Amino acid sequence: MKRPTIADIALRAGVSKVAVSYALNDQPGVSDSTRASIKAIAEELGWRPSSAARALSGARAQAVGLVVRRPASALGTEPFFMEFISGIESVLSDRAYALMLQMVDSEERETEIYRRWWGERRVDGVFLVDLHTDDPRVPAIEALGLPAVVIGPPHTAGSLPAVWSDDAKSVQEAVRYLVAIGHRRIARVAGPEGFAHTAVRDAAFREVCAEAGLPAPEIVHTDYTGDEGARAARRLLIAAERPTAMIFDNDIMAVAALSVAQEIGLSIPRDLSVVAWDESQLTQVVRPALSALARDIPAYGASAARTLLALVADEEVGNVEEECARFVPRGSTSAPSA
Amino acid sequence: MKRPTIADIALRAGVSKVAVSYALNDQPGVSDSTRASIKAIAEELGWRPSSAARALSGARAQAVGLVVRRPASALGTEPFFMEFISGIESVLSDRAYALMLQMVDSEERETEIYRRWWGERRVDGVFLVDLHTDDPRVPAIEALGLPAVVIGPPHTAGSLPAVWSDDAKSVQEAVRYLVAIGHRRIARVAGPEGFAHTAVRDAAFREVCAEAGLPAPEIVHTDYTGDEGARAARRLLIAAERPTAMIFDNDIMAVAALSVAQEIGLSIPRDLSVVAWDESQLTQVVRPALSALARDIPAYGASAARTLLALVADEEVGNVEEECARFVPRGSTSAPSA
Repeated sequence: MKRPTIADIALRAGVSKVAVSYALNDQPGVSDSTRASIKAIAEELGWRPSSAARALSGARAQAVGLVVRRPASALGTEPFFMEFISGIESVLSDRAYALMLQMVDSEERETEIYRRWWGERRVDGVFLVDLHTDDPRVPAIEALGLPAVVIGPPHTAGSLPAVWSDDAKSVQEAVRYLVAIGHRRIARVAGPEGFAHTAVRDAAFREVCAEAGLPAPEIVHTDYTGDEGARAARRLLIAAERPTAMIFDNDIMAVAALSVAQEIGLSIPRDLSVVAWDESQLTQVVRPALSALARDIPAYGASAARTLLALVADEEVGNVEEECARFVPRGSTSAPSA
Repeated sequence: MKRPTIADIALRAGVSKVAVSYALNDQPGVSDSTRASIKAIAEELGWRPSSAARALSGARAQAVGLVVRRPASALGTEPFFMEFISGIESVLSDRAYALMLQMVDSEERETEIYRRWWGERRVDGVFLVDLHTDDPRVPAIEALGLPAVVIGPPHTAGSLPAVWSDDAKSVQEAVRYLVAIGHRRIARVAGPEGFAHTAVRDAAFREVCAEAGLPAPEIVHTDYTGDEGARAARRLLIAAERPTAMIFDNDIMAVAALSVAQEIGLSIPRDLSVVAWDESQLTQVVRPALSALARDIPAYGASAARTLLALVADEEVGNVEEECARFVPRGSTSAPSA
């Protein structure tokens, strides 16, 4: 079975193809009753103007793109991306926009996809995620003239609008809380060093520890997997001066730390306080439930989508600062026992 | 900055637009050296034939679609979808195909999207997931003539090809193992009752328990969330005749059960054996590590993508049975203590 065409509608309605075209394009030349009956037949047959025809006539692609360059295993584990995408979708589907999603393994390939999507008019704009400092994708996209919203701090975004939240504030809030209840040796188990948001959190962490008069803290960079999170926690916990609190950059690494503490015979929170970045179902089903930095990720995705669609519609768009993640104490943090 | 056009190339090359068109379409009418220099300029400017022009000329949309109708929270938590999508992408990106992704909240809206995508030539085919028994989407897609691959058992797929694995075999393997090491009261904490794969697993579970001479087992249906998994586990564990083993339909519910056992003062695996469907990073970072039904989900997604692209290319396509999930014993199962 093929897509219904103007000819199919004409045949069914017993009129010419020209009459069908007049009727469907709301042009004069057919009577109101004929127009109504042609439209009814078109609806019944499921006829739609082809996106190709609309695109050639200068209409939009009605799609936006997201390219993700992370290993499949990372995507499967971290709730962030699917929650972020579901927030994007909540805005797109209201406006009959689709999301083009592509996963790649290199920055060159990612840039090539933007070039092709934009050249072939497959998308009206893109979201740029996982920004690095001096990210080469930013000038590449600026040169293409492709409308794009950066999901990350404004200092990474060049001339592109950024939708972001201030991770530095969240780090301060968590560390100051831990210091207030008596912790002085606090470690950070972070994501990959190259990401701009990792660098922002690293800097804020060092700064707030220094402000509080703590010794220079340990920061361990990982690939976000549970395995590397466990390894980092193990290494920190068997050191002579082990930390009494650890802050993890995602939920799976914090859960892995609970297991490591159990292996080593440490009790949480008595011997070790644990904080996870991004509260999730996972942080809440484990025992003890994990103290976490919580934010509304779907709302963040929705805001990013609204910003991109505004940009596509040639509206004036600036940086959009979302609420930062808030520290939510649960069972995994307490005053240190020693 | 705008997309480069034929006119831009002509201006830069100092030739007519017609000459550029001849050169780029490999038609006679220009010299080899002019053709080469025009192609070099086109490459340098990042020129691409528009997808609209190619689609009108009968070329393919070079995109396939996936509509997901699950709550955002479920998507964020279960690794299955992102791993499945990453497998799809591994095949699509090799062939320069994109994935159109859309989330919806109703079956009507899902069918409407298929109609629009196909009518507007936005996709060449779709993946159909989370099949129900007598799923109305199957006849709707058959009526549209939209190429589609069902991710689920063949009995749900009508005339469409199914890419599937035999969950009944996996259930048998896990239950027979538990029976062999001495369990007689085994409960199943399942996903939503409406899904065809839930029904397949339910039936297989009842059958293999009956074969082994066990009393009729308890099956509790949930929405896949950790909260409902915990509630189901709690209810089963405080019953007079509590089960000595439980099989969960996903990882987060099984992790929640570890917490519930701890609340109640039961030791795992001594007092309760726990099995999770789909091994994941999560099932391996918790303690004890969860015995699980393991399968290669990215490979499953890749197989689905190859099947759909073959269908789009008008090749003969039948049902494709993938390897079923295998039972992998880890620390959460042992002989019952009582």
